[in-house]
Amino acid sequence: MPELRKDPISGRWVIISIERGKRPSDFSMRISQKTGGFCAFCAGNEHTTPPEIMAFRPDKNKPNSPGWTLRVVSNKFPALNIEGNLGRVGEGIFDKMNGVGAHEVIIESPDHNHTLATMPLKSVEDTLWAFYQRIKDLKQDSRVKYVLVFKNEGDDAGASLEHTHSQLIALPIIPNLVQEEIDLAKQYYDYKERCLLCDIIRQETASGTRVVTENENFIVLSPFAPRSPFETLIVPKAHESSFSPDSSFDLLAQILQKTLKQIDKVLDLPPYNLMIHTSPFRIEHNDYYHWHIEILPKLTKIAGFEWGSGFYINPTPPESAAKFMREAEI
Amino acid sequence: MPELRKDPISGRWVIISIERGKRPSDFSMRISQKTGGFCAFCAGNEHTTPPEIMAFRPDKNKPNSPGWTLRVVSNKFPALNIEGNLGRVGEGIFDKMNGVGAHEVIIESPDHNHTLATMPLKSVEDTLWAFYQRIKDLKQDSRVKYVLVFKNEGDDAGASLEHTHSQLIALPIIPNLVQEEIDLAKQYYDYKERCLLCDIIRQETASGTRVVTENENFIVLSPFAPRSPFETLIVPKAHESSFSPDSSFDLLAQILQKTLKQIDKVLDLPPYNLMIHTSPFRIEHNDYYHWHIEILPKLTKIAGFEWGSGFYINPTPPESAAKFMREAEI
Repeated sequence: MPELRKDPISGRWVIISIERGKRPSDFSMRISQKTGGFCAFCAGNEHTTPPEIMAFRPDKNKPNSPGWTLRVVSNKFPALNIEGNLGRVGEGIFDKMNGVGAHEVIIESPDHNHTLATMPLKSVEDTLWAFYQRIKDLKQDSRVKYVLVFKNEGDDAGASLEHTHSQLIALPIIPNLVQEEIDLAKQYYDYKERCLLCDIIRQETASGTRVVTENENFIVLSPFAPRSPFETLIVPKAHESSFSPDSSFDLLAQILQKTLKQIDKVLDLPPYNLMIHTSPFRIEHNDYYHWHIEILPKLTKIAGFEWGSGFYINPTPPESAAKFMREAEI
Repeated sequence: MPELRKDPISGRWVIISIERGKRPSDFSMRISQKTGGFCAFCAGNEHTTPPEIMAFRPDKNKPNSPGWTLRVVSNKFPALNIEGNLGRVGEGIFDKMNGVGAHEVIIESPDHNHTLATMPLKSVEDTLWAFYQRIKDLKQDSRVKYVLVFKNEGDDAGASLEHTHSQLIALPIIPNLVQEEIDLAKQYYDYKERCLLCDIIRQETASGTRVVTENENFIVLSPFAPRSPFETLIVPKAHESSFSPDSSFDLLAQILQKTLKQIDKVLDLPPYNLMIHTSPFRIEHNDYYHWHIEILPKLTKIAGFEWGSGFYINPTPPESAAKFMREAEI
C-alpha cells in the first residue's frame, strides 16, 4: 500500500510509493560531468564577468585580477535589477511591481573541476562566509525583504555554467514557499510553545531511521515526506532562526561536504539543487522558524499531476534513502 | 526593467524578464516525436493492459478486445490503490494515511500516431466525455475528495508512454494547490461579491492583449503572471464551478484542439502538461471557484530558485505569447 505523508514544515502532502521502492541504481541519472571549454569563471578570465562585488584574495591582489580563492559577481543576465524603485501598482484587477533586487553569483573556487563535494574544506567554509557577508550587506537595502541562496549543480538541475558556483537572489517580497513555512511554524509554536523543527530533531534523533549523519552542532535528515528521492535536510541542532556563523561554519562546511559526498557516491554524481531557508529580515530573530538547508537531487520529472496538485510522488521511502546514505563508503 | 507580477488565481509571484523577451525559436525544445515499437495502448494489445474500466465501442464489441475508439484502464503502476481504508494516523509529530485512491489512464485513440492536436475532433470530445464520466463514477466513493485530470505529452513533460493518453488520480484529500486557489477565490468573492475568474475574463476581454482565441462559450488566455513561457488557460465564459458538459463539450473540444494546434505550430511540437482545475466534490456547486484548463509547455527548467521560493522566472511576457499564438497559421 502506498503511503500519503504530510511534510509538517511546508504542509505539502507526498505519495510514498513503497511498493516501487526504487533503489539508487534504478534512476536513469545523467551525471554532472564537466566538459571544459572557455569558462568566464576560471582564473585569468576575470574581465569577462561583471565587476566583482567581493572576493577572498589571500595575497591582496587587486580586484578583477587572478589570485582569488572565491569571487562574487553580479549575474550577467540578472533576473532582477539593483536600480530603481519598487513602484507597486495595480493593472485593473492585477498587481505588479518593478523587478528590483539583486542577482549575484558566488564562484566558489578558481578551479574549474572542483565541486562542493571535492574542493578543499576551507573553500566550502569560505563559501558559507561569502553567503553570510552578502546577506548582511544586502540587508542594508530597505527594498530587500528576503535573500534566497541556492545552488544548481549539473545541467539537468538548471546550471547553465559548469564551473562550481552558487547564486543568490535578493527579493522585494518574501517568497510564497518561505512565507508558508513561516506561517506553519508560527501556528505550531502558538499551539505548542515549541519550535517545530526542534521537535522534529528530537523525534528523529530518538527513532534514528531517517538520520543520515550528525556532528556536534548539525544533524542531517531524510525528511518524513520528501518531495523527491534522496531529498536531504541539514539543520542546526540548537534553535537558530537565521543562517549565521553561530553554530560555526567549519562544522557546517564539514557536514555539508560529507553529505554531498554521500549523495555523489550513492547516486553517482547526480544533478541537484540546494537551497537555504532562513527567516526574513524583519523577523530575523524569532523562536518559531528554524533555518535549514534543503538538498534536492534531480532524479524524477515534474509532470501534470505535480503541476496541478502540488502533490509529489516519491518512489523512494526516506528511511531507505537515509540508510543508503549512511552506508555509503566515502 | 524586469517586472514582478502576482497571479491572482494562485497567489504566486512571477518574474517576467522583459529584457530577455525570448522568442519561441530561442527555446531549445525537444520535440515530442513518436518512435514506435511495441505499445500496450495500441489496438490489438488490449490484453497487455489492466482490464478496461470503460470504453467507447461503436460496434459494441466485447470489453478488452479491439474495436474501441477510447479506453479507460487502471494505471499498471498506480500511485494510489483503490482498495483499503484511509487509516489516518500520526507517527509522533508526523501525519500519514494509506495511499487510497485511483489512478486511471484514458487512452484517447487507438491510433498510436495521433495527438490531441491531430486526432479527429470527435475523439477530443469523447475524451472530455470520458473524463466527465469517470469523475462522476469516482464521486460515488466517499473516500475520494478530489479527482485531478491531467495529461503529460512528450518525454520531457513526464510521459513514459508515447501513445496519446491522459490520466486521472482520485485523491483522499484536496490537493494544496487546488485548496489555495479555492481559498483565494473565496476571499475575493467575500470582498467583491463577484467571481475572480469572471472578473478576469471581463478585464482581459476589454484589453485584448492576452486573449489568444475564443468561441461562443470559451475563452483562451495567456495568464497575467504565467509560471513559464506560453502557459495558457482555457476558461468557460459563463460562471461554472465544476468541469461539466454545461458549456458544451463540442465547443470545448474545438477550442482545446485549436489551442494545442497553435502551441504545436508556434513551439514546434513542444512537450507539455495539461491539468483540469475544478471544484472539490463537497463544494461542487459554488459561486466563487471557476473551473479551467491549464496548459504548461515544458520549455524551462525548474532550478534552485524556483524550488526554494515558489517564484518562477519567465522570459516570455504573456502579451508576446498571446500574440505569437494568435498569429500562428494553423
